[in-house]
Amino acid sequence: MPSLAEARRELALANNIVANEGVLDAFGHVSMRHPDHPDRYLLSCSRAPELVSPDDLTEYDLNSRLLRDPGVPQYSERVIHGEIYKARPDVMSVCHHHAPAFMPLLATRTDFVPVFALGNVGGNKPPFWDQRDEFGDTDLLVVTPAHGASLARALGSHWMVLMNRHGVTVAGKSVRECAYSAITACRNADFQVRAMAIGKLDQFTPGEMELCAQIIARTTGLDRSWEYWAGRLAKAGGGPPPVGKKAARGRSAAKKSKRARGRR
Amino acid sequence: MPSLAEARRELALANNIVANEGVLDAFGHVSMRHPDHPDRYLLSCSRAPELVSPDDLTEYDLNSRLLRDPGVPQYSERVIHGEIYKARPDVMSVCHHHAPAFMPLLATRTDFVPVFALGNVGGNKPPFWDQRDEFGDTDLLVVTPAHGASLARALGSHWMVLMNRHGVTVAGKSVRECAYSAITACRNADFQVRAMAIGKLDQFTPGEMELCAQIIARTTGLDRSWEYWAGRLAKAGGGPPPVGKKAARGRSAAKKSKRARGRR
Amino acid sequence: MPSLAEARRELALANNIVANEGVLDAFGHVSMRHPDHPDRYLLSCSRAPELVSPDDLTEYDLNSRLLRDPGVPQYSERVIHGEIYKARPDVMSVCHHHAPAFMPLLATRTDFVPVFALGNVGGNKPPFWDQRDEFGDTDLLVVTPAHGASLARALGSHWMVLMNRHGVTVAGKSVRECAYSAITACRNADFQVRAMAIGKLDQFTPGEMELCAQIIARTTGLDRSWEYWAGRLAKAGGGPPPVGKKAARGRSAAKKSKRARGRR
Amino acid sequence: MPSLAEARRELALANNIVANEGVLDAFGHVSMRHPDHPDRYLLSCSRAPELVSPDDLTEYDLNSRLLRDPGVPQYSERVIHGEIYKARPDVMSVCHHHAPAFMPLLATRTDFVPVFALGNVGGNKPPFWDQRDEFGDTDLLVVTPAHGASLARALGSHWMVLMNRHGVTVAGKSVRECAYSAITACRNADFQVRAMAIGKLDQFTPGEMELCAQIIARTTGLDRSWEYWAGRLAKAGGGPPPVGKKAARGRSAAKKSKRARGRR
Repeated sequence: MPSLAEARRELALANNIVANEGVLDAFGHVSMRHPDHPDRYLLSCSRAPELVSPDDLTEYDLNSRLLRDPGVPQYSERVIHGEIYKARPDVMSVCHHHAPAFMPLLATRTDFVPVFALGNVGGNKPPFWDQRDEFGDTDLLVVTPAHGASLARALGSHWMVLMNRHGVTVAGKSVRECAYSAITACRNADFQVRAMAIGKLDQFTPGEMELCAQIIARTTGLDRSWEYWAGRLAKAGGGPPPVGKKAARGRSAAKKSKRARGRR
Repeated sequence: MPSLAEARRELALANNIVANEGVLDAFGHVSMRHPDHPDRYLLSCSRAPELVSPDDLTEYDLNSRLLRDPGVPQYSERVIHGEIYKARPDVMSVCHHHAPAFMPLLATRTDFVPVFALGNVGGNKPPFWDQRDEFGDTDLLVVTPAHGASLARALGSHWMVLMNRHGVTVAGKSVRECAYSAITACRNADFQVRAMAIGKLDQFTPGEMELCAQIIARTTGLDRSWEYWAGRLAKAGGGPPPVGKKAARGRSAAKKSKRARGRR
Repeated sequence: MPSLAEARRELALANNIVANEGVLDAFGHVSMRHPDHPDRYLLSCSRAPELVSPDDLTEYDLNSRLLRDPGVPQYSERVIHGEIYKARPDVMSVCHHHAPAFMPLLATRTDFVPVFALGNVGGNKPPFWDQRDEFGDTDLLVVTPAHGASLARALGSHWMVLMNRHGVTVAGKSVRECAYSAITACRNADFQVRAMAIGKLDQFTPGEMELCAQIIARTTGLDRSWEYWAGRLAKAGGGPPPVGKKAARGRSAAKKSKRARGRR
Repeated sequence: MPSLAEARRELALANNIVANEGVLDAFGHVSMRHPDHPDRYLLSCSRAPELVSPDDLTEYDLNSRLLRDPGVPQYSERVIHGEIYKARPDVMSVCHHHAPAFMPLLATRTDFVPVFALGNVGGNKPPFWDQRDEFGDTDLLVVTPAHGASLARALGSHWMVLMNRHGVTVAGKSVRECAYSAITACRNADFQVRAMAIGKLDQFTPGEMELCAQIIARTTGLDRSWEYWAGRLAKAGGGPPPVGKKAARGRSAAKKSKRARGRR
């Protein structure tokens, strides 16, 4: 069982990796249910996930209230995480994103369908959630507990929910699995969108969908992917230092801007 | 209130960032109304915005005449900036670009429409301006005060104007907001174009458009984006040195070519 | 005739190159028939091909059984390689991949057709293989000898077989030729997919297809490509060290994660 | 007037730049008419243009015969250059390429049309040339003087000719102008292809086409572009050393592979 420090490092690394793979940019975030306190979750303060370090992570209760206020701005959409952890005890990690790969589907209310073996993530035919249905005209941000609870209801027993004209929320049984699903679903979405421009999709049978959904639990693919993504991140000069070590040169830019934010 | 030196650094940084995010290439530019003299603006001499440093910035009056001639070539389309500052006292920064993301819309006279929450920048349904309508056959460059004034009239009270078969001009209340709008509008345009290839766009209601247009003024998203973009630029080896410091190794290529230009 | 150590380096380099050119990611692999024992083949243990080093390569017999178990996980789809080497004595190298460029064709059962002179690789009109036809509902992974043998039968005398809703398998007379075909076919697939979105493809005559298929055997294009790709890989900080030399700094991340895997 | 050494450096730099901008890969080449002997031209030996250094350039007569055989392989399509220099005394530089941006047009015989102000390069509506028309079934490579002469006739008085199912050949009045036209035409082709997927192209008037074709001769855009592209190349670790200086660290990979080629 990993220490809390190791869990925090893993969550920062997941934020960095999912950003480095093009799923997150200045916006979006990955959270983790607290490993020792299931009624809390860990999420970064308001900063781009590519820059998140373990020190940026703070603790929230399931109503998305800070346990201790670090005195820096927080993500306005944190209720997405809190309300899903509240509704789904089996969820250990949540990623919310607005990946370019998904946007054509979200902007046209087109169902996400698997187009390759690894692509059936998130549960068969993940549901859509339109904030307008329950809340009328909004700025589409999920900022009140009621918004978050509505989204969690739409997620139901799935592991991915598509948010019309907005983005995607992915859940997982671990931080790594959640990151894997977020990245792999984006790859499938990209393939699907480009395929739809040239022809009719070759549908999976229900049996194939069921079996493909189990691939990641039965193979070494998740470990292999994680090593690959972590290597790519390291090549790009990112990633948190090992637990117990100070951040090196590469973090200086982030630190500087943190000081700048402190002055705000 | 920032010093003029800090304002100049901010403008150079904005040019570098908007280029690094793929909106500008050898062409296009970001300008700023002079912080102390509202009847002047600051713009680089003729060089690719990725290479612009604070030393490249020169002052123009609102008729786009140089206050002091630095003896190097100037952008031929500087009247875009001058005429918008003249017509719109609320505009503090202008960006003109020819981003690949927008070209399919500009080449087919397709309206820009928001397809995600952050995408409604530039004012609802930003107008088109076709140079041909008023000036007949031209090379499409906006080079006379009359061209610029016509473009400014088309902009009206919007914050973005689309130029048929040419490019886009974006205005902002600050350099950062202008850069943010330019980059975010390109992301929306990219999503819109790819979405249009697979289906019918899910339209925003007027109320949603109104509320989405206010997001950036009400959240920490602009600061978060700026930190993210500045970090990406630094990773790519770009960006002006802090005020009061000399440029480091990374500027040498630009310097060398500046000397080369001096010989011209 | 190269030494076994040189052959192993070439195979690791091919894995790195094909990954660096965007054909392979965390998944997919390149193998080689053993240069001294035609009834064996060499393939990496389970790791992303971008990270494969000569030390990761292990020997299998043609039934895809390990000659010596290195005690680390193996690729589950290794039977693709074994069964093709068994069925096709003229095949010296095999690459299996799920390249984004091909996915629109595989997801819509669209025939691969050459659209430029270099594009006719893999044999005229390479066949499709649908695992469902012979095996009903599966997770689409090719993991039993029967799956692999069926795929090899579909390949027949071609040099490329397209796998519905899954990926592509390419064969070659040498490691370099196989890598070349895998990369070049992806380029053709990308061109084909984008061309199909705007018009009807200008078909090659049978005579042109025949002659284009011979280009690579008759020109210096393969050597030129290999030098180019190896140079790009080196620029990106990848590639195995020369035979007899220790890996340098760049391998440290991979080594670290290897140690981590050892603890598993 | 530049020395021959400076002209050779400029040509190597042009090869490196056009490759770095994504127009050339392992294939394609940029040549220059000899500055002192108009009946000769300079072209690299057979290597990827990204790796070409001044030492790789050799001299040909207008029948594409080597003046001095350097004992290394030559490009098989060099006749493209020789026959155009022979037919068109006003052409000082030629670039032949197979850029991804153009492939959808070449694979569907779709006319190249300008979609933005800078895009009207190569002469209004550049002609198509289909090798099949005059030579029947070939491998589409332009390898005999007759092939090259036929292509030059199709070029006529234009500055760009599109080669069905093959590539593009661009001519210029200088090396820089030729490189500029090659790169800018690819940008226009990319915009055109993506625009065609969503709507009808907004056509330029004949007068606009005429005036847009003159932009580059009348503005500082070419110098600005060259500085930008050279800066991008330097950032990527490429480019020939200044005349009179030895290549630095960055060339070592190329050198090594040159030695390797020497052993062939």
